[in-house]
Amino acid sequence: MSWNRLRRLLTPQPLITVSADPDDPRLGDLLRSADHLEEAHGATCVVLGVPQHVGVERNGGRPGAAEGPAAIRQWLRKMAMSAMIDAVRTQHLTVIDAGDLQTEGKTLQQIHDEQHDAVQEILEHGMIPIVLGGGHDIAWPTIRAMDACSTSFGVLNIDAHADVRPLKDGGLAHSGSPFRQMLETDITHLASGAFVEFGLQHHAVAAAHVQYVRDHGHTVMMLNDIRQEGLSSSWSAVVSKLERADHWYVSLDLDGFASAFAPGVSAPSADGFAPWDIGPALRSMAARPQFTAFDVVELNPAFDVDGRTAKLAAAMIMEVIAGVASRGA
Amino acid sequence: MSWNRLRRLLTPQPLITVSADPDDPRLGDLLRSADHLEEAHGATCVVLGVPQHVGVERNGGRPGAAEGPAAIRQWLRKMAMSAMIDAVRTQHLTVIDAGDLQTEGKTLQQIHDEQHDAVQEILEHGMIPIVLGGGHDIAWPTIRAMDACSTSFGVLNIDAHADVRPLKDGGLAHSGSPFRQMLETDITHLASGAFVEFGLQHHAVAAAHVQYVRDHGHTVMMLNDIRQEGLSSSWSAVVSKLERADHWYVSLDLDGFASAFAPGVSAPSADGFAPWDIGPALRSMAARPQFTAFDVVELNPAFDVDGRTAKLAAAMIMEVIAGVASRGA
Amino acid sequence: MSWNRLRRLLTPQPLITVSADPDDPRLGDLLRSADHLEEAHGATCVVLGVPQHVGVERNGGRPGAAEGPAAIRQWLRKMAMSAMIDAVRTQHLTVIDAGDLQTEGKTLQQIHDEQHDAVQEILEHGMIPIVLGGGHDIAWPTIRAMDACSTSFGVLNIDAHADVRPLKDGGLAHSGSPFRQMLETDITHLASGAFVEFGLQHHAVAAAHVQYVRDHGHTVMMLNDIRQEGLSSSWSAVVSKLERADHWYVSLDLDGFASAFAPGVSAPSADGFAPWDIGPALRSMAARPQFTAFDVVELNPAFDVDGRTAKLAAAMIMEVIAGVASRGA
Repeated sequence: MSWNRLRRLLTPQPLITVSADPDDPRLGDLLRSADHLEEAHGATCVVLGVPQHVGVERNGGRPGAAEGPAAIRQWLRKMAMSAMIDAVRTQHLTVIDAGDLQTEGKTLQQIHDEQHDAVQEILEHGMIPIVLGGGHDIAWPTIRAMDACSTSFGVLNIDAHADVRPLKDGGLAHSGSPFRQMLETDITHLASGAFVEFGLQHHAVAAAHVQYVRDHGHTVMMLNDIRQEGLSSSWSAVVSKLERADHWYVSLDLDGFASAFAPGVSAPSADGFAPWDIGPALRSMAARPQFTAFDVVELNPAFDVDGRTAKLAAAMIMEVIAGVASRGA
Repeated sequence: MSWNRLRRLLTPQPLITVSADPDDPRLGDLLRSADHLEEAHGATCVVLGVPQHVGVERNGGRPGAAEGPAAIRQWLRKMAMSAMIDAVRTQHLTVIDAGDLQTEGKTLQQIHDEQHDAVQEILEHGMIPIVLGGGHDIAWPTIRAMDACSTSFGVLNIDAHADVRPLKDGGLAHSGSPFRQMLETDITHLASGAFVEFGLQHHAVAAAHVQYVRDHGHTVMMLNDIRQEGLSSSWSAVVSKLERADHWYVSLDLDGFASAFAPGVSAPSADGFAPWDIGPALRSMAARPQFTAFDVVELNPAFDVDGRTAKLAAAMIMEVIAGVASRGA
Repeated sequence: MSWNRLRRLLTPQPLITVSADPDDPRLGDLLRSADHLEEAHGATCVVLGVPQHVGVERNGGRPGAAEGPAAIRQWLRKMAMSAMIDAVRTQHLTVIDAGDLQTEGKTLQQIHDEQHDAVQEILEHGMIPIVLGGGHDIAWPTIRAMDACSTSFGVLNIDAHADVRPLKDGGLAHSGSPFRQMLETDITHLASGAFVEFGLQHHAVAAAHVQYVRDHGHTVMMLNDIRQEGLSSSWSAVVSKLERADHWYVSLDLDGFASAFAPGVSAPSADGFAPWDIGPALRSMAARPQFTAFDVVELNPAFDVDGRTAKLAAAMIMEVIAGVASRGA
């Protein structure tokens, strides 16, 4: 298997030396470009960006998410490596920044198709795609790629919203529709009961949409129920659902966080998760070999406050990479 | 009993269709105007706004709360209904937006008298007023209306401050005085020990004011004591105090939240509650038949950040309505 | 022992009457100037400011911390006194604002030397310095003063970062170096294993720096480990480390808080502590006679949002003073 498709689809992003101090390398100093995919050792995370907000606008959201990948990268590069430097040095971990999809002048359908191809190529090599949104519509091509590469996959959506709205105008995907596409389209390898919506807020989701997910045999964990049950116990319940599948795709919509922590999103939530509710769980799940794909979506830098949300996105990605780094240990 | 007084006092606010999707109605789509008060079915919440900040300015606060009701309504209308749509459809719940008091050119005393009349009329019909502030002075006319309509009522104030300051200049009410007015004026039906101040911060309240409340036989739960005791246990203690009364009035001052969550208030607090400390308790209390009146005060949109505090206010109101909706269940 | 040195080094800051209400005194109304040091009764806290950000800029941070002391004072003066007014009235507590170090036209070395002299003079009188930063480099002169005045001291650093970076350009201190200076310079009275770094974030600290602290026999408690262990249990572990020493110096870097709560700092952290994680522990530690010195560092008002971070700094100082006030009780 060559990497021709991925390299053709993605525009490399500049790799920049961040720290000259060998005692204090940053992720940016260790990132490799897509040119080095063949040399990857150990568990390999492949970052790729999808800089568009077509699906957000189509869903009535405010534009800006197209700038998300660049804003996340700015902070991701600066992140210190204490939880993963040993894994990199012992060649148990490789982190590659494969660049951004070329979205200019393309329809959302075209962008999704190219994302599907790129993610599928990464999955076929047994590597872990970390997709930087962009709107939540980017979950759909990742789901299709999971379906193509796995005989049994589960999906966790951490979100204030259900994102199971119907397509627009007879078939146009948007940032509120990816999980309806998953449940209604010809997806064959989603494990029974292995789709979990986590953190939905009762005043941000329609009863019909909650019921829709449940009617398909999957699980909705409302934010208020999670709090009543307790975070720890709720996360255990999530994992036990995911364990019905061989491969897990975790999607993190930043609007699942309270807007105090994540002001820079398409549709901010006054209530929601704190970073400490999510980070440790991501790390713990990513340490499991079933953890196969991840994305962070809906960052809107136009509404961010001093990079707070972009840094949160980068911090959550670091939890995932730290979890992956611990697999060999 | 007719609704003439209330209809004369309030200016209707436009009811706007928010969602055209029958699967995803929003609160704004189900709100009825004051014209429909006679047709209300089941538990009925009546929203009314008091757009003024006379009492805030009199207390030395920064003006802006007069814009509070409009800002809350903007988000309240958009709220999804998953926790209450069944109750509306089965006629166990009605939500009415009765409009705003006419405050233009009136003294605070006149505004308070008219608020008292409007709230009393709502209470007399066995409906639940949800008053949108405005400054915290609006608690006083609601207390007077509770006193007129109940033989035994309790009051919960969720706040960083005690609001038991003396009146200004020989008798002028202000946003820091409502609970002193309650304790010193001829209020006859406040149940013994059924007034609870919840979340006061030691660096935001005078020792003499804490003592003042306790000397009257009521309860102050300081924020640090609540944390030491634990939220769950503290809320149980609150409810056991309120249970001394037949009817409960709950007042939510948004400055009881940490300013990370509620930046848009007259007097922000660096420390304070998180949304998850308050929302579930409001819902649980509102599910009880004793829960009779509610208000949200001190929103100052001029200092808000991207609507964060207005959305928090709307979310807390949705917790209350969700609690009321569950009564029949 | 006279106070000549301290009075010569510090510029008094204006003491302002905040409240005319005898029932509601504010800290500003009770603060005494350095002229009153001889008359101090009971436990005495001495506030002094170090308005500079030379060390922040040297460490590559964004300037602004020089305005920190003024911004903290603005809010500290307004703080209500419910937790400490009795201690002041019974002469068990005195709070003095000794003013600001004169930093204009001086090198960082000169400023540090003068801070060392001032802090040492306060410690020699058995009083508790509360130093307002400025960059975190100000920990170093306080450590030297602790070393001069105690035969056994411990240090707690609450921080996202380790601050054990090497000096710059062959010997220049900076905001990232104070604890390396402590571990490598001729400090003789730091108790074995009594230095604790609390709250470091794995993506904000180098593995080599964590190891460096541990290799010196001291303790690093990473934020994720604290969460896994639980705050309460983690604080107990901190105190048991500090108890190896007779005197404790606690340094609070505001960037240890999540930037939702502390946006106005030199280097904000998306994740981090909430106020409730830290305030009660500060109060509890300050109630112990071993609690000898405190500082709050890295406030950068240029990036603050409506005074949120400055108020948080003031609130944390009030927790410390409240703890000290309770010593006699």
